[in-house]
Amino acid sequence: MSGVRLGLCGLGTVGSSLVNVLQRNAAVIAARAGCEVSLTHVASRRTNPACDLGGLPVNHDILAVPRDPNVNLVIELVGGTDIALELVREALANGKHVVTANKALIAEYGNELFAEAEAAGVSIAYEAAVGGGIPIIKTLREGLSGNRIQRLAGIINGTTNFVLSAMWEQRREFAEVLREAQQLGYAEADPSFDIEGVDAAHKLSIMAAIAFGMPLQIDGVYTEGICTIAPQDLAYASELGYRVKHLAVAQRSNGAVEMRVTPALIPQDCLLASVNGVKNAVLVEADAVGTSLYYGDGAGGEPTASAVLADVVDLARALGRAQRPVSGGLGYTFINRNLPMLPVEDMQAAYYLRMSAADQPGVMSAIASIFSAAGISIEALLQKPPEVGQTQVPVTILTDTVREADLRAAVTSLEALPSIAGSITRIRVESLDG
Amino acid sequence: MSGVRLGLCGLGTVGSSLVNVLQRNAAVIAARAGCEVSLTHVASRRTNPACDLGGLPVNHDILAVPRDPNVNLVIELVGGTDIALELVREALANGKHVVTANKALIAEYGNELFAEAEAAGVSIAYEAAVGGGIPIIKTLREGLSGNRIQRLAGIINGTTNFVLSAMWEQRREFAEVLREAQQLGYAEADPSFDIEGVDAAHKLSIMAAIAFGMPLQIDGVYTEGICTIAPQDLAYASELGYRVKHLAVAQRSNGAVEMRVTPALIPQDCLLASVNGVKNAVLVEADAVGTSLYYGDGAGGEPTASAVLADVVDLARALGRAQRPVSGGLGYTFINRNLPMLPVEDMQAAYYLRMSAADQPGVMSAIASIFSAAGISIEALLQKPPEVGQTQVPVTILTDTVREADLRAAVTSLEALPSIAGSITRIRVESLDG
Repeated sequence: MSGVRLGLCGLGTVGSSLVNVLQRNAAVIAARAGCEVSLTHVASRRTNPACDLGGLPVNHDILAVPRDPNVNLVIELVGGTDIALELVREALANGKHVVTANKALIAEYGNELFAEAEAAGVSIAYEAAVGGGIPIIKTLREGLSGNRIQRLAGIINGTTNFVLSAMWEQRREFAEVLREAQQLGYAEADPSFDIEGVDAAHKLSIMAAIAFGMPLQIDGVYTEGICTIAPQDLAYASELGYRVKHLAVAQRSNGAVEMRVTPALIPQDCLLASVNGVKNAVLVEADAVGTSLYYGDGAGGEPTASAVLADVVDLARALGRAQRPVSGGLGYTFINRNLPMLPVEDMQAAYYLRMSAADQPGVMSAIASIFSAAGISIEALLQKPPEVGQTQVPVTILTDTVREADLRAAVTSLEALPSIAGSITRIRVESLDG
Repeated sequence: MSGVRLGLCGLGTVGSSLVNVLQRNAAVIAARAGCEVSLTHVASRRTNPACDLGGLPVNHDILAVPRDPNVNLVIELVGGTDIALELVREALANGKHVVTANKALIAEYGNELFAEAEAAGVSIAYEAAVGGGIPIIKTLREGLSGNRIQRLAGIINGTTNFVLSAMWEQRREFAEVLREAQQLGYAEADPSFDIEGVDAAHKLSIMAAIAFGMPLQIDGVYTEGICTIAPQDLAYASELGYRVKHLAVAQRSNGAVEMRVTPALIPQDCLLASVNGVKNAVLVEADAVGTSLYYGDGAGGEPTASAVLADVVDLARALGRAQRPVSGGLGYTFINRNLPMLPVEDMQAAYYLRMSAADQPGVMSAIASIFSAAGISIEALLQKPPEVGQTQVPVTILTDTVREADLRAAVTSLEALPSIAGSITRIRVESLDG
């Protein structure tokens, strides 16, 4: 059975963009696939008038698609992990290849789904799950396959990058920019999934599994959101030579793996510091290739459709020859089945700390004593003059590299000082090549 | 015949790095390939003591490798287009897959070699031919396969980027920096292949063929070298908000294709402007994905070995299942077999012009008249005061978009003015997203 007959589930932003790109670029796609790629069955709970299906009816029964004997490749763009999981399982059980853009589904159920696909002799591909249109999954799985990858550092959530970029460029407060992002459609009505780093954690766990040759481990990702970041943090960071980004990092660390999504200061002359607005980028450090970086639109209908189509064409190149596709899955037999996750307390980093200190003698000495007793070196210190009528001054400190647990203890001691008002803002400092 | 038994031809910088990475990362590579990848036969005209072959002898007869029945994948790292061409043809004729890092070979003979490979039922892969370790061939051939690509703009020659970066950062002259690059091994004893843009033209023609679905057309690339660029050009460009890079551009242009390698002013806030030293980057503009960028080490032993191994693992993933590999070649049936190349006279761009003008009344008016008569708008003009004892002043002009032929005519008229001394330096201005 040669050629590809697509069954599309979901006609939201990505689904309707996919239909449009598939029509607009039909000749290019057929030439690259080496065979006909046709839309055979479309299902969606709602019809989408923005979408010209050329007379094809929209089936409201999504599970009819994986059961349709005329379909040999199912595209899952329903989202979520309820009906999406059910339909992907049904597709695999019926011997159909699957392409999905669903990061939550892959991060949470990927280990089982890849095993089910392998047993059924079909592929499950998910380029669109990470980095929108940037082909980062293919790059990690295939483009850098001769390397041992040491570290991934990515700006992989467009919402938080839009918010931090606008806060810095326009000197505005978090809450105000978030409201604007919601009005522009860059943030959901309930933005916590993006703002708290859950979305980025899903994507990071997928990239880390491929990079390190281990099973997916969504529970291993430590996350911090961006809601404690104030405009003055972005300004002080700039004075110190940094930009603040919501950064997802996975790295090998003394036989363990460290995965975290946190705000981070990154050197302003490194390329990641110039990734603004809703753009995404992933920096990869690997032993043979060195440092490389992949940049582009991390979300949106057509960029995501581009990634879905890359998977479709990959599968079609094999299906057109009646071969079983090689691509998809994690792209390896496990190299590291039981890599331990580094607990957050043991992670090490330099830190930026901002506190409000009483403008009186002895305060700096008290602060310095706490760092000294904790064995933490101070790399830089900014103290600003008090504003008119204020008795508190902002003090900003960059520490040397410190173990997270030691830093937390020092922050607790600092917050207990009578001369320190309120809580201390702390942001990791990430040193990066390239 | 499952598993991959490599025949390696060439033990220079890339060949010996390949042997080292293959040993160091043997477990990772086998896990990703899904089968054993072993070095079976090595040939080189010279032995390389930096290379531990684990007792494997070095055959000085390179053509014995493609004839060895124990080898099923030949890696060509000999370079040049004499023996390399012969050995690749021999490998294809003997039904062996080929991986090469040879951009000249692919750019000049790719059309024939891909046809020979297709006829023989084998693959020829060449990720390492462009962009060193950056997986840009895979990205264009597979990662963006659902897109119509409009434009590629790349910094794809490390030598010229090193020279221009050092000229700018250290305010030094071209000839002096070139000598240093030669001492550091970043430039050849005869640097003209890099400096004049021939190397970049080879790489650009390969990327353009894949991007636009057309045969390789190395003769269609217009090239200008960087030897006329002076340190003051980099300084004036900076005042105007630009950096000067040796830029390779391929774009669709009114039903034709425009391919050129020239110095270019690019906006200093775009990511390509921050690509310095021997780093490479390629920016891609495509209809669905928008603007994306790929950055990394564009040369060197291990980055190039990384790209060679990516091809080896891709082929191994299929060979391990006794399937014919899908990847390699140009990755399409021709979409555009007869796309015309745009002659350089018809290319359009804004231009930076620097001239030495007499410091006397009427000169600016004479200059302005020539632009006006040619229908060329002036977008910006910098006139510096004369240095002590000088009667000439440097005048720098940014024009609006103009047809190349019209610009050349205007420059000829300007150079004929008695008040203009010497020749006029002209550099394209490239407008870029991202």
